Amino acid sequence: MDFAAYVRDIKDFPKQGVIFKDITPLLNNPEALARACEALCGFTTNMKIDKVVGVDSRGFIFAPMLAERLQAGFVPVRKKGKLPYKTVSESYDLEYGSETLEIHTDAIKKGEKVLIHDDVLATGGTASAVCKLVEKLGGEVVQCNFLVELTFLDGAKKLNGYQIEALLQY
Amino acid sequence: MDFAAYVRDIKDFPKQGVIFKDITPLLNNPEALARACEALCGFTTNMKIDKVVGVDSRGFIFAPMLAERLQAGFVPVRKKGKLPYKTVSESYDLEYGSETLEIHTDAIKKGEKVLIHDDVLATGGTASAVCKLVEKLGGEVVQCNFLVELTFLDGAKKLNGYQIEALLQY
Repeated sequence: MDFAAYVRDIKDFPKQGVIFKDITPLLNNPEALARACEALCGFTTNMKIDKVVGVDSRGFIFAPMLAERLQAGFVPVRKKGKLPYKTVSESYDLEYGSETLEIHTDAIKKGEKVLIHDDVLATGGTASAVCKLVEKLGGEVVQCNFLVELTFLDGAKKLNGYQIEALLQY
Repeated sequence: MDFAAYVRDIKDFPKQGVIFKDITPLLNNPEALARACEALCGFTTNMKIDKVVGVDSRGFIFAPMLAERLQAGFVPVRKKGKLPYKTVSESYDLEYGSETLEIHTDAIKKGEKVLIHDDVLATGGTASAVCKLVEKLGGEVVQCNFLVELTFLDGAKKLNGYQIEALLQY
């Protein structure tokens, strides 16, 4: 399936000079939605996955679907203050300022195999922080997969040592 | 399945005096996750559903799974400024201040049958605004379903005239 046909460019979003990859047409099409989920799962063939971690909020769209297909549990990673139970946290730098992400302390058990999913791999700051959160709990990151990779932002470099997969590369 | 056994109470979250229903243990358990999805779908037996609308961000967890199972498209509703394409918006009052939600103008076609999903039905303000967004685009709301309904907050009253379903009621 030509997934790229279901992604549209939005100029100057969220700010001047950026071309945003809008995946909502893909989500809106029943066949594209199901096939994209299938294709993302295909990246993990023959892997044992205990937990799928999704990053708030667009990572929440596919991560639970992947978890269900892989018969794994789903774990949300959210911005500071959003998760209600005990958490561990990880901060990272943004272009301006910084961001703190959290995960529940009981979300992943020591030795569990973890798939991390987010919609877009840009500079890799978010995904790298999520890997650290998983490892703080003793989990093993077996893959980071994405719907879209913006290769010109070199995010894969920041995830050196991790297996990276993406459905669409720009 | 006793879904309630996978929901834990968190006292004083997000603020003093509130008991928060934490669904992350349910999401974390592969069987509970799959069964909850199945049960939510069960509420729509014999209904034709074209689109499933999920509300940012915890509504994003089950809505795409429901969409896939029902062979429907998934439509995100997000807070003002988060969706990249042309939108229509709807504002509603909160305890303090107000909130504005948006939907893409091309997300739903006139006459389409729409299932609205969110994790929790509390006062009904959010769900009621989402119904209005769907109707502004000419869609027909055939059901609002929720993982959890906090019946003591009387949200169903605000959704008078709509079919309401919830997996767990408190």
